[in-house]
Amino acid sequence: MGEDRFLYWGSGSPPAWRVMITLMEKNLEYTSKQCDFSKKEHKSMEILELNPRGQVPTMVDQGVVVCESGAAVQYLDAVYANPPLMPKDRKALGLALQRFHESNVLAAKISEVFRLKMLGQIKTEEDESAWDKKVAALNEELLLWDAHLSEGYAAGKEFTLADVMLIPYILILLRLDATLETLPNVKKYAETLKARPSVKKTSPPHWATSPSPGWLKGKF
Amino acid sequence: MGEDRFLYWGSGSPPAWRVMITLMEKNLEYTSKQCDFSKKEHKSMEILELNPRGQVPTMVDQGVVVCESGAAVQYLDAVYANPPLMPKDRKALGLALQRFHESNVLAAKISEVFRLKMLGQIKTEEDESAWDKKVAALNEELLLWDAHLSEGYAAGKEFTLADVMLIPYILILLRLDATLETLPNVKKYAETLKARPSVKKTSPPHWATSPSPGWLKGKF
Repeated sequence: MGEDRFLYWGSGSPPAWRVMITLMEKNLEYTSKQCDFSKKEHKSMEILELNPRGQVPTMVDQGVVVCESGAAVQYLDAVYANPPLMPKDRKALGLALQRFHESNVLAAKISEVFRLKMLGQIKTEEDESAWDKKVAALNEELLLWDAHLSEGYAAGKEFTLADVMLIPYILILLRLDATLETLPNVKKYAETLKARPSVKKTSPPHWATSPSPGWLKGKF
Repeated sequence: MGEDRFLYWGSGSPPAWRVMITLMEKNLEYTSKQCDFSKKEHKSMEILELNPRGQVPTMVDQGVVVCESGAAVQYLDAVYANPPLMPKDRKALGLALQRFHESNVLAAKISEVFRLKMLGQIKTEEDESAWDKKVAALNEELLLWDAHLSEGYAAGKEFTLADVMLIPYILILLRLDATLETLPNVKKYAETLKARPSVKKTSPPHWATSPSPGWLKGKF
C-alpha cells in the first residue's frame, strides 16, 4: 500500500520505468495500476482526467500530478531528499545534468527504431533502407555513450538521476538482442545496472514471459 | 566581458536562446561567440573539443561544460541562486517541472515542421500532405498549451524556468507569421514575454534584418 502516492505505468514503458526506479531508490511506497496498452488503458478517462496526453507515467504524489518522466524523477529527488540522487558539487552537478538531459537524445533514437518495427511500418525495401539508416545513426549515438560511460556510470563513478534516465533505454537494447560487443562500456554498464535492485525489481514483467522480437540481433 | 563564462550560440537557435535568457535573468556576465550555421561554425574544432555533438549552445561556466539547454539552465539556476527561477513550494515545483519538461514535446513538433521547410524537403504532393499532418498535430499540441497558459505563465502566475524553455518556440510561431487567433492565451503570452527584457535583448538578431519565410502564415 502506498502512502498518498499513485502511479499509472505500463510494462515496457521506459519513461514509467524511470519513475519506478526512482521511487524504489528513494524507498517510497506507492500504489500503482498497470495499464494494458493493447486495451488502450492509458487512454482511459481516469488517466485523461489527470493527464490530457493519456500517457504513462502519470504520477500523483500527495495531490501533485507529474507526468513527464524527467519532471517526475526531479520532483521526487527534490521533495524526498534522502538518499540524494544528484551531486551537490558544482562540477559534478553540471555533468550529471548534462547526461540527464542528453539521455533523451539517445532515448529518441531508440524509440524511433523500436516504434517503426513495432508498428509494422517496415514493408518495402525503401522502408528497410530507411530503418538501416536509423540503426546506423543509433550506432553513432551509442559510440558517444560508450565514451561517456568509461567511469562506470552516466556521470562519473556514482549512480545519479542521469542513470535513472538512461538505463531503461540501454536495457531495451539487450531485450532486442543487441550484443553490444563493440560497445564495451555500454555492455558493462548494462550488466551492472540490470542487477541493481531498484532496476531489477521494476523490470518490465512481460520481458520475463514473452520472447524478444530480436530486432537488434547481432547489432552493435 | 564575462567572468569565467563563455557561450557559443547561433542566431535563431531556440536551445541557445534559452541559455541566453537565463544568463540575463540571473544578471550573469559572459563572453560569447555567435556561430554562423551557414559556414558550419558549430562544427568547428573549438566547439567539437568541448561538445562532440558540435551544437549550440555550448556553455563553459568556470570550467564546467554544459551543452544541453535544459541542463544548462537548470545548472545556472542551481549554482546562481538569485533570483530563483524555480519555486520552492512542493506543489508549485511539481507543476513547474512538469511544464519545463513538457515544453520539449512542443519543441520537437515545432522543430520538425520548421526543419522540413528549411531543408526544402517538401517537393511532392505527398510531402505537402505529410507536412499538413504535422501542422495539424502541432495545432493539437498548441491547444493543450493554450489551456496551460491560462494563468499567464507556463506554470501559473510567475515566470519560471518553464517559461525559459517554452518562449523561444512560441516566438518562432510568430516569426513564421502564425496569427495565433484561435489560441488567445498563447497569443497573449507571446506578446507579454517578447517584451520581457531578458527575452527581447537576446532575440535572434537576424529576425530584425531578414524577412520571415512565412511558413505558418494564417495558421492557428
